[in-house]
Amino acid sequence: MAAEAAAAAVREQAEVVRRLKQDEADPERIAKEVAKLLEMKAQLGGEEGKHKFVLKTPKGTRDYSPKQMAIRERVFTAIINCFKRHGAEVIDTPVFELKETLTGKYGEDSKLIYDLKDQGGELLSLRYDLTVPFARYLAMNKITNIKRYHIAKVYRRDNPAMTRGRYREFYQCDFDIAGQFDPMIPDAECLKIVHEILSDLQLGDFLIKVNDRRILDGMFAVCGVPDSKFRTICSSVDKLDKVPWEEVKNEMVGEKGLSPEAADRIGEYVQLHGGLDLIEQLLQDPKLSQNKLAKEGLGDVKLLFEYLTLFGITGKISFDLSLARGLDYYTGVIYEAVLLQQQNDHVEDPVSVGSVAGGGRYDGLVGMFDPKGRKVPCVGVSIGIERIFSILEQRVEASEEKIRTTETQVLVASAQKKLLEERLKLISELWDAGIKAEILYKKNPKLLNQLQYCEETGIPLVAIVGEQELKDGVVKLRDVATREEVNIRRENLIEEIRMRTSQL
Amino acid sequence: MAAEAAAAAVREQAEVVRRLKQDEADPERIAKEVAKLLEMKAQLGGEEGKHKFVLKTPKGTRDYSPKQMAIRERVFTAIINCFKRHGAEVIDTPVFELKETLTGKYGEDSKLIYDLKDQGGELLSLRYDLTVPFARYLAMNKITNIKRYHIAKVYRRDNPAMTRGRYREFYQCDFDIAGQFDPMIPDAECLKIVHEILSDLQLGDFLIKVNDRRILDGMFAVCGVPDSKFRTICSSVDKLDKVPWEEVKNEMVGEKGLSPEAADRIGEYVQLHGGLDLIEQLLQDPKLSQNKLAKEGLGDVKLLFEYLTLFGITGKISFDLSLARGLDYYTGVIYEAVLLQQQNDHVEDPVSVGSVAGGGRYDGLVGMFDPKGRKVPCVGVSIGIERIFSILEQRVEASEEKIRTTETQVLVASAQKKLLEERLKLISELWDAGIKAEILYKKNPKLLNQLQYCEETGIPLVAIVGEQELKDGVVKLRDVATREEVNIRRENLIEEIRMRTSQL
Repeated sequence: MAAEAAAAAVREQAEVVRRLKQDEADPERIAKEVAKLLEMKAQLGGEEGKHKFVLKTPKGTRDYSPKQMAIRERVFTAIINCFKRHGAEVIDTPVFELKETLTGKYGEDSKLIYDLKDQGGELLSLRYDLTVPFARYLAMNKITNIKRYHIAKVYRRDNPAMTRGRYREFYQCDFDIAGQFDPMIPDAECLKIVHEILSDLQLGDFLIKVNDRRILDGMFAVCGVPDSKFRTICSSVDKLDKVPWEEVKNEMVGEKGLSPEAADRIGEYVQLHGGLDLIEQLLQDPKLSQNKLAKEGLGDVKLLFEYLTLFGITGKISFDLSLARGLDYYTGVIYEAVLLQQQNDHVEDPVSVGSVAGGGRYDGLVGMFDPKGRKVPCVGVSIGIERIFSILEQRVEASEEKIRTTETQVLVASAQKKLLEERLKLISELWDAGIKAEILYKKNPKLLNQLQYCEETGIPLVAIVGEQELKDGVVKLRDVATREEVNIRRENLIEEIRMRTSQL
Repeated sequence: MAAEAAAAAVREQAEVVRRLKQDEADPERIAKEVAKLLEMKAQLGGEEGKHKFVLKTPKGTRDYSPKQMAIRERVFTAIINCFKRHGAEVIDTPVFELKETLTGKYGEDSKLIYDLKDQGGELLSLRYDLTVPFARYLAMNKITNIKRYHIAKVYRRDNPAMTRGRYREFYQCDFDIAGQFDPMIPDAECLKIVHEILSDLQLGDFLIKVNDRRILDGMFAVCGVPDSKFRTICSSVDKLDKVPWEEVKNEMVGEKGLSPEAADRIGEYVQLHGGLDLIEQLLQDPKLSQNKLAKEGLGDVKLLFEYLTLFGITGKISFDLSLARGLDYYTGVIYEAVLLQQQNDHVEDPVSVGSVAGGGRYDGLVGMFDPKGRKVPCVGVSIGIERIFSILEQRVEASEEKIRTTETQVLVASAQKKLLEERLKLISELWDAGIKAEILYKKNPKLLNQLQYCEETGIPLVAIVGEQELKDGVVKLRDVATREEVNIRRENLIEEIRMRTSQL
């Protein structure tokens, strides 16, 4: 490790010297010389060094094969359909932001941000989530009112655990409602959306935990946590879904300097979870009910549960005082959805999954970007796709379900030699009519090979041209599954293919 | 500039010192301390410095608003439909690659690659195109045969010209065919695809220029260019679409040390363009026909034109000896599509556009990644979306066409106060039935405001609940365009909405 860092230091110093020199000379000439050097290096590489390439994707990232893409598309379709059902618009932002745009938004997680190299010009970082870019977008365009979704990759230099669906490059599917509205109506819709998506994807049983940052802060206050330690103690509580209470308590007391008594008082609260009854009980709690923040939070969570009752989804919702959420920017209701178990227990090595969605209210974030500090209240939810992919991929693997990775309706084939020109003419007609069609890229492919290709890739029809068919003005249309063949007049072929594949 | 570089140098040296120190101490403790410092800085920023944020996206990048996304979706749909019509699978790769994966693939353009900061671990770069990641993917997975598309953003530290659709972050839509096949059949399909997409998008008149790297190399040889200068002279020729011949000649002679006579000979060839007749003429050219490479290239381009004739698209194809393409990895046929003019001439400030698609054959690239140097012949095309966006955006702007940015079918509204609960119950039913529905997030919104929201966002129907309707078991369904209202029995509402919006 030390050697690696030293080498990196030497590299960087050389880079600095180079850049300084460059600046004194003609930058254009230098740029050209650098390009020449690179080219020389590449040519050397081409002859001597070409076998030294490490053939891999960067740590914590992966490619998607056509089969994986087919599963990904299914998941995206379900999620996008839900977002559109709720009237959301869609936006997109760049993959990187000015470094300072991300600074001070993520608390202890900031160390996981990817920075770009300073190549002259602006200092840039890869986006860490879609929420901060969204807030920047709202402030920059002075938007005070929008319901939008955004599906894109985000980047975290975390320890990857790829079998559990934890990557350094991963998708987030975000839905957010920004604007000044009556309490808890948009918040309730976000939870309805999580419920709809997780039900739709049939991932098995799930639970949506709900809490409120104001209840947490009020709880910290009545437990005797000093104001200055609220955020860091909140980070400790956030670990409760992964480590036992004793460990979290040790961190609070040992590392963060909280008194053991305060920690114990927190310990009593964070084991509470339930529904409306628990909310009512806490509203009567002699200590908590005296705290203004906690009372506000409890009042709002109560209202939220009333709306969720109207939506008929409280069966999967748990008010849980141990839910904290890591990020700094939340100001009100927070929530997180976890899968409770896997539906298909016969899988040998089941993917262990935790949180698949999370979000909450962040009323201060847009104001951090606005020159005049004007606030735009926001609430949103982020669906974590990678863990869902992991489950579905493994399920497909186990079920031996055959997934088609193309939509080709017909293969244009020939039974004899010297018919390439005729195949090209026919397929061109089909393409121009909007038919999804393929040919084998051989001058004289064997019929058997052409039929096998259809079997392998799931193409349902074969349009066979032969000398006799050409003379008769017909094409032989073969159903791959039934092996039935029938001559179709050339002018009726397109209609026939459309009809036969319309249910696909 | 010098001051900026010096400041950057100081920053980097401090960074180096910090990293070295960190390595001697307990890295975990240091990481925590850095996080604390960052947090402190953020808190300071929150009170004193928050107005210093620069509210912008990084240079050469942009956000997409919902309206721009609607246009983008249309273009993507047309392109994806075409790729699927040709039987392509789809893959995805990470946004960054190991730096060495990109090294030596792009010639003089390598200086435009974005590098990530060395934060310990692998050295990474943002992808520069989708072709090199594709070749890496093939070699890594030992795939010798695939037809795939890939639509994703790529990154180039070029001088942006955003009004002309030139960005530092931009989409490429790539279609490639990998595998050992009979000559020119896949190549012809790539050109058919460009033709289909550009026709489909109705961007006005276009021309697809075609050449072959072997013809260029043969031409350089017979003109007296030394072997070692082939690539760099090729880069000069590539500029001919932007600068006049005289300037290119000056570069060849002045900067690259070519003899004026050789340059003049090149000058004669590169002004040639035509069709099959020109190919035949060059096959008889006393010098060119003696060159093995040129002869091979001309033979293949002739075959290509025969296939393109069968596809009926030679009207838009021009064999053009001035086409060179910048990238190093091409080995055979190359092509580039340009828009000839804008269709709607009444636009005041027309977007000036050049190349909107390009590609070619690269038979050596996969072998550069394969440990044993095994080659996988490839040919492909990349559609440059941003310029197409620019044109379509401007066209929409000029036409005052109203673009819907949501698909909402019905707004659930109320005519009286105290009906929020009823609205929530009804909209929940609609969502669960798959109806795209919205409500205003107000406890007691005014009917006028609810109707106005529909007008503004293009929602065609309003489902109005009122006390009388609730008693009667009906919902008042209003057609926003015609203002007609009719009472629908609650149990028939979903069917009625589906029926009325099925044509939308």
